[in-house]
Amino acid sequence: MTPPERRSVRVDGVIRVTEDGWREDHDRLAAEEPLEIRLAYWEAGERVEKPIAVTMRTPGDDFELAVGFLFGEGIIRRRSDFVEVYYCLDTSEQQNYNIVSVSLMPDVPFDMSRLDRHFYTTSSCGVCGKAALEALEISGCDVIPPGFTVSAEVVMSLPETLRAAQAVFQQTGGLHAAGLFDRDGNLLSLREDVGRHNALDKVIGEQVTAGNTRLSDRLVLLSGRASFELLQKSLVAGVPVVAAVGAPSSLAVELAHSFGITLIGFTRPDGFNIYTHPDRVLRPVPIPTDVANIRQEA
Amino acid sequence: MTPPERRSVRVDGVIRVTEDGWREDHDRLAAEEPLEIRLAYWEAGERVEKPIAVTMRTPGDDFELAVGFLFGEGIIRRRSDFVEVYYCLDTSEQQNYNIVSVSLMPDVPFDMSRLDRHFYTTSSCGVCGKAALEALEISGCDVIPPGFTVSAEVVMSLPETLRAAQAVFQQTGGLHAAGLFDRDGNLLSLREDVGRHNALDKVIGEQVTAGNTRLSDRLVLLSGRASFELLQKSLVAGVPVVAAVGAPSSLAVELAHSFGITLIGFTRPDGFNIYTHPDRVLRPVPIPTDVANIRQEA
Repeated sequence: MTPPERRSVRVDGVIRVTEDGWREDHDRLAAEEPLEIRLAYWEAGERVEKPIAVTMRTPGDDFELAVGFLFGEGIIRRRSDFVEVYYCLDTSEQQNYNIVSVSLMPDVPFDMSRLDRHFYTTSSCGVCGKAALEALEISGCDVIPPGFTVSAEVVMSLPETLRAAQAVFQQTGGLHAAGLFDRDGNLLSLREDVGRHNALDKVIGEQVTAGNTRLSDRLVLLSGRASFELLQKSLVAGVPVVAAVGAPSSLAVELAHSFGITLIGFTRPDGFNIYTHPDRVLRPVPIPTDVANIRQEA
Repeated sequence: MTPPERRSVRVDGVIRVTEDGWREDHDRLAAEEPLEIRLAYWEAGERVEKPIAVTMRTPGDDFELAVGFLFGEGIIRRRSDFVEVYYCLDTSEQQNYNIVSVSLMPDVPFDMSRLDRHFYTTSSCGVCGKAALEALEISGCDVIPPGFTVSAEVVMSLPETLRAAQAVFQQTGGLHAAGLFDRDGNLLSLREDVGRHNALDKVIGEQVTAGNTRLSDRLVLLSGRASFELLQKSLVAGVPVVAAVGAPSSLAVELAHSFGITLIGFTRPDGFNIYTHPDRVLRPVPIPTDVANIRQEA
């Protein structure tokens, strides 16, 4: 059985059509396979194991994906909340590596109805963006405090750093990426997936597994657009600056505004847009006029 | 209350950072709001109305989105399966236009467990891509027969046609699009959304609402990548040719291969890749050598 890390790319036949003609070739495809995430928890002294989500993902880093997903949902809050993570292995070959179980510590409560907050509903306003933000507050998400700062130059450097490191993407062109950086622009972690939520879950899950549940001096770069759910995952992990190569949605901006996240969009080597909390991005110190004049004369 | 069609774009303040400096400006954001889809059905002679899904979507074409989603899930199979679609309006202003109900005809059965096929599980191989394909077969999806053809020139023309028509995208840069075309490359329908599944659901939902549930002489163009779920939705609607501007995933290719869909990726004005069933794409008739020679001499 091929380990999952070896299956993130598959080679398949393809016909390349150009204005000059047709030719048969091979192409590398980003692998997509369902992953079932199960939770093992204790209920009235009995150990229960239940499937709680299925996601279409690119195989690889499946444990991190499961941990990151459960962390984003508020089911796991710290490393000590879970005992272990394991593949469900049985006699069927195909099933191997497509079911991951996370077992909670006996004293960690789990309420199945917690997953229902996906309904973004409150009694005050029903289903709406405001309710979705209120649900985050109710679930214990705090406003991220100021303090962390980053230079504009570092922000502009992120896309190039991410792209240079994107091994699978360069092969297939078919993957979303999420990167975790320190304030000097060093890439600490990069994950790729056919699903953009999965890429971020994998990045955060790796940190949670290592015991880092407050990423308060980190930046996240998303290779695509910034949606509500990606901001939600960043908020739960306490990330103060989220930059996207693409555009943010209106509700992503509202979440970032309400919870103190600096949200950056259209991140390019020569510029970017700041949508919320610009104070974390340092303006370059302007050169005093007389010094600038001397330089021009020189 | 602003009608939902007016809320697909929101204007917000932004700071534009370039190498030349910072300036305050306004930016147009793609709107993102939760939509709750409810189903009203009959159970033992009683009318029941239950929420069955919540999706983060760009407001607008919400009825088509709900109908397209239910069609893709196999809950609605024809126009006559549902009586009406309506917003749930109550006293709370924010809730308006964020809940859509579809009421089934009294004789249309609905089984809540049908939605569980999202678990992509069968007893034969557990959770895997093969199980996901088998589940489609079990739910009644047939192989799309050959017959429909399209020229390579038409395929190359699709991205430009789509882009020219993408009104909201040009404003925000933040939306996925799905387009429905006839075999001559005429754009019949275009929908945009922060969620790529939603854009396709809206396109298909519009057709289903008009009574067109077999789109057997149509092409679909997706502005992004082609995943399993987008192919699944196309299959249920009987679309023979699916083209994507981005890359396909491995499981999208497997689905297209198994169910007779021509899957095209990296669709560009000067070329594209055919991953499956290339017979539907007409090769240009080669100019006989002597004619070509005459032309060169002229």
